[in-house]
Amino acid sequence: MKPYEHGGNIYDYQREVIDFSSNINPLGPPSWIWQVIKEVDLSKYPDVKYRNLKESIAEYVGYDKENIIVGNGAAELIHLFVRAFKLKRPLIPSPSFLEYERAVKLNGGEPVYLKLEEEEGFRVNFAKVLSKIEEADGLILGNPNNPTGQGIIREEIGILLKKAELMDIPVLIDEAFIEFMKDYKKYEALPLVKKHNKLFIVRAVTKFFGMPGVRLGYGIGAPSLIQKLEEYKEPWTVNAFAEAVGRLLFKDKEYIEKTREYVNEEIERMLFELRSIDYLVAFDTKVNFILLKLRDGNVDEVKGKLLKEGILIRDASNFRYLDKKFFRVAVKKREENLRLVESLKRLYDKGFTKEAERVVV
Amino acid sequence: MKPYEHGGNIYDYQREVIDFSSNINPLGPPSWIWQVIKEVDLSKYPDVKYRNLKESIAEYVGYDKENIIVGNGAAELIHLFVRAFKLKRPLIPSPSFLEYERAVKLNGGEPVYLKLEEEEGFRVNFAKVLSKIEEADGLILGNPNNPTGQGIIREEIGILLKKAELMDIPVLIDEAFIEFMKDYKKYEALPLVKKHNKLFIVRAVTKFFGMPGVRLGYGIGAPSLIQKLEEYKEPWTVNAFAEAVGRLLFKDKEYIEKTREYVNEEIERMLFELRSIDYLVAFDTKVNFILLKLRDGNVDEVKGKLLKEGILIRDASNFRYLDKKFFRVAVKKREENLRLVESLKRLYDKGFTKEAERVVV
Repeated sequence: MKPYEHGGNIYDYQREVIDFSSNINPLGPPSWIWQVIKEVDLSKYPDVKYRNLKESIAEYVGYDKENIIVGNGAAELIHLFVRAFKLKRPLIPSPSFLEYERAVKLNGGEPVYLKLEEEEGFRVNFAKVLSKIEEADGLILGNPNNPTGQGIIREEIGILLKKAELMDIPVLIDEAFIEFMKDYKKYEALPLVKKHNKLFIVRAVTKFFGMPGVRLGYGIGAPSLIQKLEEYKEPWTVNAFAEAVGRLLFKDKEYIEKTREYVNEEIERMLFELRSIDYLVAFDTKVNFILLKLRDGNVDEVKGKLLKEGILIRDASNFRYLDKKFFRVAVKKREENLRLVESLKRLYDKGFTKEAERVVV
Repeated sequence: MKPYEHGGNIYDYQREVIDFSSNINPLGPPSWIWQVIKEVDLSKYPDVKYRNLKESIAEYVGYDKENIIVGNGAAELIHLFVRAFKLKRPLIPSPSFLEYERAVKLNGGEPVYLKLEEEEGFRVNFAKVLSKIEEADGLILGNPNNPTGQGIIREEIGILLKKAELMDIPVLIDEAFIEFMKDYKKYEALPLVKKHNKLFIVRAVTKFFGMPGVRLGYGIGAPSLIQKLEEYKEPWTVNAFAEAVGRLLFKDKEYIEKTREYVNEEIERMLFELRSIDYLVAFDTKVNFILLKLRDGNVDEVKGKLLKEGILIRDASNFRYLDKKFFRVAVKKREENLRLVESLKRLYDKGFTKEAERVVV
């Protein structure tokens, strides 16, 4: 089994690095949060029912408090879903976020996989999912998906959900990155929660708001589904800072819009520039990170050389179906992105690919 | 099944209350923590391996980093232990912390219970545990135990561990409250970790340091045991604030000593005064909370009347083997404790017990 390592692990390295390995908002957290943090009353337990926090999220997503569960990042909610529904062989279109697979295995199961094809730009092939789901006892779908950056539109999700309903199996849609999408309204599954009581949508909060260390995620589902999950949940998993900040984050529409605009503008530029590098394939993306493939060489070499220039990328070879040709980078600040592109270009000039191969091509 | 409600749930009540229901350090957090909190870099994920934090804890407990696991409070580690060892029928001397039992049930098991007897002052009867453990596939022991406030000394734990070792079953000792004990050195199981590789000691951090909302707990065990638990653990469950503060907390020996002194002095006074109230039995305790029993009336009535005076107590009737005669109070600040005692005395004067019964006695 491949090790379940994630991005953002800058602590493995001695020196300061620009971290392109973790997919978080490059703008940093909204500045007002520090005032809120300073005013947290630490001597009290957080509300174990998180009433105010849930109300604030409910308002943001247009549902009721009873439709909301909160957790220690999206990760807790993914594991919770798998445990509560005792999933043993859910369908996981892959490559995808490693915790889906890990949660199932820790629960004593083995997922059914559907390979996302490189030739199809790693897009989720809706017809294949519809067919493959028949072997499964659930569906876990990243939308948009990590590390591929691709999404599936709501119309198609609706059809999948109808099939899942006939089979009476639960569906988790992980929308951790959906707020980064320009056309998220076409993709988000939110309106489907009313119609499908075994649909669970998971979202990360603190990643989008540039403060992953604060740890807050939430899930949306029918009240009966949320209640089932709450039965299995450990108490007080959301800390007092996350609770306090979370109650106000969703009101900051300006920050949300600014992020979306910045990321989408910048990703276009990055894609354009990365595609000018011969030895790289940069796949299309709908979000704040890009999956890349090396035509020559391998990621260990590239990662090592970039580290010497103070740049950390995400080796993507431990994602299912990917290998040492793949890596992932996040969108960072303009000047940082330029440094990445420049460094990648220099690697090539320095004879990074074997002379022999280059001559042949 | 009784509902798994905990203390500290002040959010059920409209008005400000003095919260005697949660067992946290009444001195409040050390003042220096705010400086540390302000300096946390929120834009980074916490170190998913929590190296520095573990080193700081390792130094405090006199073991190595490889002996330490950290979690979102003690609760995460209790659930993790039950899942990783797939415990289906561990022995739980009860009444005890409700999450032990809950963790086992969520894992599809049903604990073996050993009833702690009121006539024995709810002390853990070592001989009975030694005999009853033969029916079990593990042991979960609060030491000192919540809500009874009683502990079992290391010599006895050592004998239990030898038996557990012969049976090849794991043992969790929950020392969440041990630092409040005057003679903790006689009770703590720490030195036994070297000898028993299926012993797991769990401790709460942020409860003792007066900031339960920050969420930090840790566990100590043999490296092989810790590794097994890490395999099952969800990533990044300790938030960036807990990580930063936790690295420094254990160095504050003065705070630790001051707390221990204050709590032990104050608990003596409280016990003395509570025992002057005829309708109450106040059980002995080794820690920062007291289990009480009503000779007359029931806890709903007492709780309701105290709430009107702005005082919240912990109805202890949802603990296994306890009923509506029992409640628990924590040690708070001197003047708050006096208010509690005064209020309890007044309840009596106001004819809280039935006249008939009082005359008979």
